[in-house]
Amino acid sequence: MTRLQRTRDRITGIRGEIGAGSQRLLDQKTKPRRSLGRLEDLACQIAAIRGIPVPPLPRKAVVVMAADHGVAEEGVSAYPAEVTGQMLLNFARGGAAINVLARRAGAEVVVVDMGVKNPVSASEGIRSQRLGPGTANFTRGPAMSRETATRAVEVGIELAEELIGGGITLLGIGDMGIANTTASSALAAAYTGASPHDVTGRGTGIDDETYSRKIAVVRRGLALHPPNPQDPLDTLARLGGFEIAGLAGVVLGSAATKVPVVLDGFITSVAALVAVRLAPPAAGYLIASHRSVEKGHGVVLEAIGAKPLLDLDLRLGEGTGSALALGLVDAALAVLQEMATFESAGVTDSGA
Amino acid sequence: MTRLQRTRDRITGIRGEIGAGSQRLLDQKTKPRRSLGRLEDLACQIAAIRGIPVPPLPRKAVVVMAADHGVAEEGVSAYPAEVTGQMLLNFARGGAAINVLARRAGAEVVVVDMGVKNPVSASEGIRSQRLGPGTANFTRGPAMSRETATRAVEVGIELAEELIGGGITLLGIGDMGIANTTASSALAAAYTGASPHDVTGRGTGIDDETYSRKIAVVRRGLALHPPNPQDPLDTLARLGGFEIAGLAGVVLGSAATKVPVVLDGFITSVAALVAVRLAPPAAGYLIASHRSVEKGHGVVLEAIGAKPLLDLDLRLGEGTGSALALGLVDAALAVLQEMATFESAGVTDSGA
Repeated sequence: MTRLQRTRDRITGIRGEIGAGSQRLLDQKTKPRRSLGRLEDLACQIAAIRGIPVPPLPRKAVVVMAADHGVAEEGVSAYPAEVTGQMLLNFARGGAAINVLARRAGAEVVVVDMGVKNPVSASEGIRSQRLGPGTANFTRGPAMSRETATRAVEVGIELAEELIGGGITLLGIGDMGIANTTASSALAAAYTGASPHDVTGRGTGIDDETYSRKIAVVRRGLALHPPNPQDPLDTLARLGGFEIAGLAGVVLGSAATKVPVVLDGFITSVAALVAVRLAPPAAGYLIASHRSVEKGHGVVLEAIGAKPLLDLDLRLGEGTGSALALGLVDAALAVLQEMATFESAGVTDSGA
Repeated sequence: MTRLQRTRDRITGIRGEIGAGSQRLLDQKTKPRRSLGRLEDLACQIAAIRGIPVPPLPRKAVVVMAADHGVAEEGVSAYPAEVTGQMLLNFARGGAAINVLARRAGAEVVVVDMGVKNPVSASEGIRSQRLGPGTANFTRGPAMSRETATRAVEVGIELAEELIGGGITLLGIGDMGIANTTASSALAAAYTGASPHDVTGRGTGIDDETYSRKIAVVRRGLALHPPNPQDPLDTLARLGGFEIAGLAGVVLGSAATKVPVVLDGFITSVAALVAVRLAPPAAGYLIASHRSVEKGHGVVLEAIGAKPLLDLDLRLGEGTGSALALGLVDAALAVLQEMATFESAGVTDSGA
């Protein structure tokens, strides 16, 4: 049995009875019942995931995985593939948006090279888990082999287990990869049955001509690789994304270890969808940070049953939305921990 | 000339050319242009308010004003009026939701008694600016005199000026007052022309019968006090809310001193609407934190031209939504300050 299969088998549903207990505690706090809305849901979800009625504030990390995509050669992005590696270096040196936002949120950033075109010097604090110089072009054949897809997912599982073993109790995920919205659109269409048109957006900001080409590329990918709903790993291998597979692994490793995962935008949500197709109970461990402007995001969020907390018209990726939402998780848990009760504060409780 | 009139005269539009300069700086950062969406808007708005292209991270305070409402005797709330004073004490002792959330956001909480029914001991760190033991019942006469309304607004102006003079550069506002959604609905209808039905919600959680009564109470208030669009202060005095008037003053004092104000839910947004009716350029200084479930909130946000950052189904008040949004303001300004540029990071800029 592979590590992937063992991990899938270990993922069980979250403990709703623990979350219900946390809600009862929140109902004794000095506020009208449920008046903190989704902040209360968030606290109860984390309690149910962790199996602790009043979880401590989390230790946080954001895992950013980067890779290149063979399909970039079809001319689907506004940026050349070199930018993936350049940005990887920018992450390592602390100058990217995710570095700034993770610092504000008190989260560590863990940068992983899953296979960019031009590898970056190892001395830069980037974890090298390269599976090649990018995937193959999925309009001509599978993006990667089934074995490589399994390995990519397992890299993510191992990383999640390592971080959680080191004390991390909340993981955000982020992506970087020129053309990875194209791979994500193909995966979203394959897993949900949505039409390529409905799940293909403008990524980093492409013009009309490039956009039409991108939709056609997604269509060709689906025609060449008709999805088999019984075999989600096959779909992942064929349409690819080393970083998407790796992030799906981070979700699986977190869910198996009972740690919540905060998603970013479209690509990380597709990675979460891969994880949910591989192990359906993983859905309970997901927190959607924001609703991206990327067209397919809503379809994917619905498929994984997650509702975003922020609506900021973000479309950057890197885990920036995850990092912005980490503070809301802290806030939700602080409410559960620190607020006075009607009884302790001597406030009349009308029961409303 | 009154202090209120002098303050109205001092409020000028925000400096769009400074904000445009900040956007040019953001466009050189290592990310597709505008890909941080409304976070970029937020940074540019604050730059335009402060008149500084790259503003420092703010020093923050949340002003929570509490008062009682004569209209509570009409049976429009799920809670008795005593709760206003009890919660004031809870704020002072640090046990309420706003205390927990402001602590997380690194913001000071400033609690002001604008006139609760049963005054709280002065030793508790609450600022006493009492204008009486609550307003009069607006279904029988004016909630307060024009002079008292002026004074209430001036209390807010003076407080904003004091806090800003002491180094605060970002203000959140919050409210507490049993029955203050009723006063706010009446004010919202009077200022926007919306029907009472469209701006009256269920407040802290009232049943159908109480809800029908609440709408009827708002209708009676409007019939007794037909609004004069030329005299927004008259409308404020008649339909009242000492805390609403005071918070309108905080908005005016902040706008006059070029400091942004983060709104909470329905009541604080109505207070901002009062301020905007008194001094239209104050609108540029407002940041809407969240979209409340309270029914009239959307109408009021539209009237002041503010779009909320969070959608969390909150309906608590106290400034809780403001406190949750303060971290987003920090994040937006940190991006403007700390991110690398394409040039400094050696990343290829496609211009997308």
